[in-house]
Amino acid sequence: MDIATAAGAAKKASIEMAMLKGEVKNSALRAIAQALTANADKIAEANALDIGNAKKSNLALPLLKRLKFDQAKLAEACAGIESLIRLEDPVGKTLAATELDHGLELFKVTCPIGVIGVIFESRPDALVQISSLCLKSSNAVLLKGGAEAANTNRILADIIYEAAIGAGLPAGWLSLVETRQGVIDMLKMDKFVDLLIPRGSNEFVQYIMNNTNIPVMGHAAGICHLYVDKAADIEMAVRVTTDSKCQYSAVCNALETLLVHQDIAKAFLPKIQATLEEKNVEIRGCERTRDIIGVEAATEEDWTTEYLDLIVSVKVVSDMTEAIDHINTYGSKHTDAIVTGDKTAAAMFMEMVDSADVFCNCSTRFADGFRYGLGAEVGISTSKLHARGPVGLEGLTIYKWKLVGNGHIVADYSRTDGKKYTHKKLNKDFEL
Amino acid sequence: MDIATAAGAAKKASIEMAMLKGEVKNSALRAIAQALTANADKIAEANALDIGNAKKSNLALPLLKRLKFDQAKLAEACAGIESLIRLEDPVGKTLAATELDHGLELFKVTCPIGVIGVIFESRPDALVQISSLCLKSSNAVLLKGGAEAANTNRILADIIYEAAIGAGLPAGWLSLVETRQGVIDMLKMDKFVDLLIPRGSNEFVQYIMNNTNIPVMGHAAGICHLYVDKAADIEMAVRVTTDSKCQYSAVCNALETLLVHQDIAKAFLPKIQATLEEKNVEIRGCERTRDIIGVEAATEEDWTTEYLDLIVSVKVVSDMTEAIDHINTYGSKHTDAIVTGDKTAAAMFMEMVDSADVFCNCSTRFADGFRYGLGAEVGISTSKLHARGPVGLEGLTIYKWKLVGNGHIVADYSRTDGKKYTHKKLNKDFEL
Repeated sequence: MDIATAAGAAKKASIEMAMLKGEVKNSALRAIAQALTANADKIAEANALDIGNAKKSNLALPLLKRLKFDQAKLAEACAGIESLIRLEDPVGKTLAATELDHGLELFKVTCPIGVIGVIFESRPDALVQISSLCLKSSNAVLLKGGAEAANTNRILADIIYEAAIGAGLPAGWLSLVETRQGVIDMLKMDKFVDLLIPRGSNEFVQYIMNNTNIPVMGHAAGICHLYVDKAADIEMAVRVTTDSKCQYSAVCNALETLLVHQDIAKAFLPKIQATLEEKNVEIRGCERTRDIIGVEAATEEDWTTEYLDLIVSVKVVSDMTEAIDHINTYGSKHTDAIVTGDKTAAAMFMEMVDSADVFCNCSTRFADGFRYGLGAEVGISTSKLHARGPVGLEGLTIYKWKLVGNGHIVADYSRTDGKKYTHKKLNKDFEL
Repeated sequence: MDIATAAGAAKKASIEMAMLKGEVKNSALRAIAQALTANADKIAEANALDIGNAKKSNLALPLLKRLKFDQAKLAEACAGIESLIRLEDPVGKTLAATELDHGLELFKVTCPIGVIGVIFESRPDALVQISSLCLKSSNAVLLKGGAEAANTNRILADIIYEAAIGAGLPAGWLSLVETRQGVIDMLKMDKFVDLLIPRGSNEFVQYIMNNTNIPVMGHAAGICHLYVDKAADIEMAVRVTTDSKCQYSAVCNALETLLVHQDIAKAFLPKIQATLEEKNVEIRGCERTRDIIGVEAATEEDWTTEYLDLIVSVKVVSDMTEAIDHINTYGSKHTDAIVTGDKTAAAMFMEMVDSADVFCNCSTRFADGFRYGLGAEVGISTSKLHARGPVGLEGLTIYKWKLVGNGHIVADYSRTDGKKYTHKKLNKDFEL
């Protein structure tokens, strides 16, 4: 099936999906979990094929690990589906209700976005998570996974699609896009696709953003900062810095630039140097940093670099304002943290840093849908509209305005002696 | 001042505006209303200049009327500001709070979007409304009004800017862009401008959407439909159709295409023809319509045309599904209504029509921020993300995630025997 056909079918399915009852969606999710478990052997076979091919082409070990979809990963994916079933239906929720006049009632009600195109990396578990999130939020989905996982993705998509169809989902609700050309074609499908969620490298996400008229949700870079305030507890600052940088350095919410108040730099920098160097972290410092500890020099380029590696750049700042300016200038609006004992400073930092996630006295690594308790995430957004930070079910919905009258017309309210709007807040859900 | 300087200053101001207390914003709004009233004579002079120029260049009468900013319009604008003062501060509201673990608390808190660029038509009252909406929502704003209103816009912007600065708003929070080149330059300011709201002709809004990387909120066309179901009350259908088409035909929420169920067409069409023709509305019908009433033929082009005039296209459909398909295919996702006595049909129509506003038994003309009780509107959005339909204060805000810990690190939760997340819903506002 070509992408235009798939996208057209998804659009058609999405209209029917807007009507789906919560029970139907939950029974579809249950059927998916059961079908995945029942087909464990077939999935293992397909995954072995992908792993074999990857080894032949000398895929790096971390990528091989991500590619692996064994019994444990399968069980985890099914547990994820179970927890999604327990979450409230995000569709059909009345966000606000207003009486405009007697018998004329306005309701703001959540609804699905429509058709979502998700382009994701080589982890096959991402396919299970994304398709079940889309199903639960009544969105049709076009999926493109990493080419290395082609066989695993194909069998997973087939199982998920068929199980859901058996439970009452409409034909075409999910399609797997299998070629790179398919993605390029998808970017032109603004007639059918309402939202693109690309996950992957900075360059790849930038490419998507620059080459489509479809709204894009996601993040290109994650240049996260930690600011150690003059009122910081030094032990805490060392602990939080180390976790932010080292707990898993290859991810978007890992620390890249450390900002240190000048009044605490002399006490803090030698300690953090000792701890980070013990963990093989390369430190690149500004001139003021290098006056205190012996490290390589940071260049202008360092401030805009997402290392995704055991490297950190360090800058000594004269005050918090300089730290905030630095973050708002060089950051990526992802996650930035302060360590301080001063609540006024923390409040100001959290207001003025223009990022999706602003943290006080904890690791940047907490920026994650699962850790936030969202159930799961479809991605992390650094945009300023719609959804920000980790995006779960709620970010996959929007609302529509439903107005119910009894023959009401505007002309009756437009005369000087006409009817008046009551604009009374109602405490009820949408009803006809 | 060139646009890059103005946009940079606005970005800087926007960071400070995020910290503004509600009282400061309200006293700024009060100062603006007072300053506008105190400068009524100067404003009248400037407006007389614009009106004079417009008459010289033979501006059409309706445009002249829109351009006029007299004592009554000024009083209305000030009353609008007063009602805005009474509205709750949309910034700093805690939307959700979750305990991730003991002493580690996550808050989802509303905040301003940042810098908003608004391009609006020739009505000077729009300038007052838009700038006060942006102020109340703590957003910096770049404004470009119609060239015909240049003198009025200049004095209004100066008065509003200075009054707000006197009340504590930061320098650069508002700038007036005065040339067409200024708008074209603004489209490239994605480093500084977070959102564009263009209001104006279909072609103009399309041009903006196709020529910028900045997110755009608004609507190009308003091709609104009314579907007269077989279970409709015919008198109500005539009344609602007439209001939707004729109450004010030059606006985006006016009716353009009437869809009529075949079972009611013979009874309804002659009546609506009589009523509409009496009001000088030209009717263009499909073949099945012309089998019943004598009207001009509608072509394929009519289904995609926003007349903004006393013209309506009419199509007879075999069932509601055909009506829904027609709307989702040819519509503009703006406002679409059904007239029916059948609640099941109405519910289905309102779910399956993929538009911002879906109405039952009332006029499409109700789709408006003031009528909805939003206080005022900055525009109407037909996008599927962020804000849909009439956009008031809420659509000018977004949220950030604020996480407050006490030295919490992710490593403690990542070991198999590690700490567990509690994910307990908290019933409190953000606090440090």
